[in-house]
Amino acid sequence: MHQSPDEMTVLEMLGSTNLRQSTPEDYRILREIVNSFERYSGVGNDIQLTLAEHAANELIMCEKTREYAKGIMDPSKFVLHTVRKSPLFQILSKMPKGAALKVHDTSMCSLRSVIELTYRENLWVCTTQDGCRVEAFRFAKEKPKDPMEKLRELRGERNLRKYLLVRFSMYPLASFTTNAHAWRHMMGIFDLLDGLLQYAPLWGDYYYNALKEFYADGVRTVLPQLYCLDGSLLPKRQTVQIYKDTLEQFKKENPGFIDSKLIYAPIRHVQPEVKEFPGFVVGFDLVGQEDVGHPLSQFAEELLKLPDHINFYFHAGQTNWYGSHVDQNLLDAIVLGTKRISHGYTITKHPVLMRLAKYLNIALEVCPVSNQVLQLGSDYRNHPAATLIAENVPMVIASGNPAFWRAAPLSHDFYMAFLGIAPMNADLKFLKRTAKNSIRYSSLKDEGKAEAMGKWKRKWDQWVANIAAQKENQENK
Amino acid sequence: MHQSPDEMTVLEMLGSTNLRQSTPEDYRILREIVNSFERYSGVGNDIQLTLAEHAANELIMCEKTREYAKGIMDPSKFVLHTVRKSPLFQILSKMPKGAALKVHDTSMCSLRSVIELTYRENLWVCTTQDGCRVEAFRFAKEKPKDPMEKLRELRGERNLRKYLLVRFSMYPLASFTTNAHAWRHMMGIFDLLDGLLQYAPLWGDYYYNALKEFYADGVRTVLPQLYCLDGSLLPKRQTVQIYKDTLEQFKKENPGFIDSKLIYAPIRHVQPEVKEFPGFVVGFDLVGQEDVGHPLSQFAEELLKLPDHINFYFHAGQTNWYGSHVDQNLLDAIVLGTKRISHGYTITKHPVLMRLAKYLNIALEVCPVSNQVLQLGSDYRNHPAATLIAENVPMVIASGNPAFWRAAPLSHDFYMAFLGIAPMNADLKFLKRTAKNSIRYSSLKDEGKAEAMGKWKRKWDQWVANIAAQKENQENK
Repeated sequence: MHQSPDEMTVLEMLGSTNLRQSTPEDYRILREIVNSFERYSGVGNDIQLTLAEHAANELIMCEKTREYAKGIMDPSKFVLHTVRKSPLFQILSKMPKGAALKVHDTSMCSLRSVIELTYRENLWVCTTQDGCRVEAFRFAKEKPKDPMEKLRELRGERNLRKYLLVRFSMYPLASFTTNAHAWRHMMGIFDLLDGLLQYAPLWGDYYYNALKEFYADGVRTVLPQLYCLDGSLLPKRQTVQIYKDTLEQFKKENPGFIDSKLIYAPIRHVQPEVKEFPGFVVGFDLVGQEDVGHPLSQFAEELLKLPDHINFYFHAGQTNWYGSHVDQNLLDAIVLGTKRISHGYTITKHPVLMRLAKYLNIALEVCPVSNQVLQLGSDYRNHPAATLIAENVPMVIASGNPAFWRAAPLSHDFYMAFLGIAPMNADLKFLKRTAKNSIRYSSLKDEGKAEAMGKWKRKWDQWVANIAAQKENQENK
Repeated sequence: MHQSPDEMTVLEMLGSTNLRQSTPEDYRILREIVNSFERYSGVGNDIQLTLAEHAANELIMCEKTREYAKGIMDPSKFVLHTVRKSPLFQILSKMPKGAALKVHDTSMCSLRSVIELTYRENLWVCTTQDGCRVEAFRFAKEKPKDPMEKLRELRGERNLRKYLLVRFSMYPLASFTTNAHAWRHMMGIFDLLDGLLQYAPLWGDYYYNALKEFYADGVRTVLPQLYCLDGSLLPKRQTVQIYKDTLEQFKKENPGFIDSKLIYAPIRHVQPEVKEFPGFVVGFDLVGQEDVGHPLSQFAEELLKLPDHINFYFHAGQTNWYGSHVDQNLLDAIVLGTKRISHGYTITKHPVLMRLAKYLNIALEVCPVSNQVLQLGSDYRNHPAATLIAENVPMVIASGNPAFWRAAPLSHDFYMAFLGIAPMNADLKFLKRTAKNSIRYSSLKDEGKAEAMGKWKRKWDQWVANIAAQKENQENK
């Protein structure tokens, strides 16, 4: 629990002092006592840095302080697309971040690789406005609409690539004024991608590519029914089988890779297709915009019937309204025994639930960029995760649908959390704790976690050594 | 303390249950237990409503639910200048709100009444851009610049009124992109008003008018040196004397009025002019943009030397950066024995300090509209006061410089707190608790508080009776 007996002592000590009549010495002592309490709570306080890490930390904090100072001057410059130029971002992008614990399958891969898929054979495209607006994709033998090549010729390859990059993304971000509006647009992207990605021969390649781009554990999938060239639909178990086969293949070819698991996450509806593949399909979730969907409580009875090996990883509290039925999802997620909470944006308005999450060791999947893009909050400095960090509530940094906002799988989210949400003095200890948390709170079993931690640690030490060397180079110049 | 032994029991009970394997019945019982904890914590939970209040509450909640539903559809409609049309705002504007505990003297009165002052005799005006831009006002016998009448003729009375309304205000609000930018603009308004309001014969009238517009307790004043028609400056004690005489006069003419006190609040500098007038000048504060001013700790020694009858009511933590020296002001305010904290916007990022505020019964002066206008947060739903409400930390709703955003002294802030910050189910109990808090945490002595509470209660009961009658009328139609 966060409120240790020692904290109680401090409260009582200050309560029994007439502070207004302190001597300057008393004031300084009391101030130092309270301050030290703050210093030793918070995410990352349990980490001890090595000598090499200390050296790396100095360089990181130097860059952080520089960007912080720029931000205090003009926080409006703190925007997504300029971040890649920042030296701090460059450092963070190379940091081994552990696992991406919250990612949705059809928005994992970079848009560049999605656009490559439009060059595959037998792709047809349905357009309106004389070919100006793409409405749907479809792989087929027979001609259902215009061939993709024809459209490419008509509009020019470069233009079409540019156009698709916009259609598959949430840009321009400023065009959404509300959460509901942003959600509608995002669901439109999913629809547009369906015909492209749900083509059975492509599905495995897409997932393989995602594994190449990053290590994704607990990939949330709505388990679409894949289709074949002749239009026939495969059973859903086939979708899982493809996932499984692709992963085996990838692991064989990349022995340094940890593992990947699936969380079956249909759109706010309980379906029983999760009973096969124990050990690979490890969890269950319900996704979709919570404001407009059914609350978790409505599915409680069915959910509790799911087999024991299926853990819960519920989306809950992804709202900035306070006290609507979306907040109730947080309560239900916890009481139903969820292992993690996706978003939980509203949990700081429910201190009892926040303390329960901490006590029950339920990690919150914090997705800073997603929250900004989906209009939950425009200013990172008001993100509720600051309170989670201060209260040392278990948390991981995650992304969700990074491709849609053209972000790196985790780097943008780490950057925003580190610079915009965490306190000014949060340093390498904070980064190390959150990276380690992604393995600690992953869906791996204990042995898997130990192995994963070992693999991660080797990469981490290498990264730290590189920064320390970089620092020494700078000093010797 | 918020964490009662009972809460610990709930934590332990849930911790020792295998929630994932609950029966549906267990789930429902556990859910209800946790839920009831939430229901009985939070600001207002200690209030018992009378029968008449219950009736009034039904009408209020009916209007609130209606506006909430509109807001969920499109929160972007939730803006300041459209609020006055709302039926809920009409109800809240008539609600007896107790005292305005945070208001700065030169921005208390409505701009309409400030503009009336420009019709006084002997007013001269300094302009640039051929009379297009007003730079300063000055009362004088000799001609220092152009007479005000001449400018009025030149630009036309109606146009000039319109122009001054803009110059004296923070509109258009959207034109500020950062906190620092908004602050610069606000300091410009204060400068422009100086020559107008600091004219000795006017000062008393201005304060008298403020008392007419609302009951302001703990008015924060920088104690300007007033000037006379011949240009001579009065000693600062004269400024306080005028305040005191005007208040006496007002109280004589308005026996239902409670009282008003001054808090001496120089711009981040300790001056000793507060020792006279005990019982009227009751407090001390340091004001100004905290980011760019000196931290409280720098003044600690001098502050602790101020006489015992001067209480502290410090501005602190008015920032959305996390971990800068502005946050330290929060710590210092508390350790120096402050009675209230003005803003404390960043306190939810410092749980130890938040628990200290609760334990030491230090009320936070929450100013929703000010925070929005000064760019701390654009969306009320992310305002940190939601966590204060949930944690039942002492708080009052206050305004600051309401005239500058053309808001009513307290009604806009109550409306935004009630609809945008408090939970959906916050009702008349919440409103009553926050109104009562404004007296409980005022600078009055115990006897004064008892008397004030009596006066407030009579007005409150009348207001409740009126709403209940309104409801009955509606039902009989």
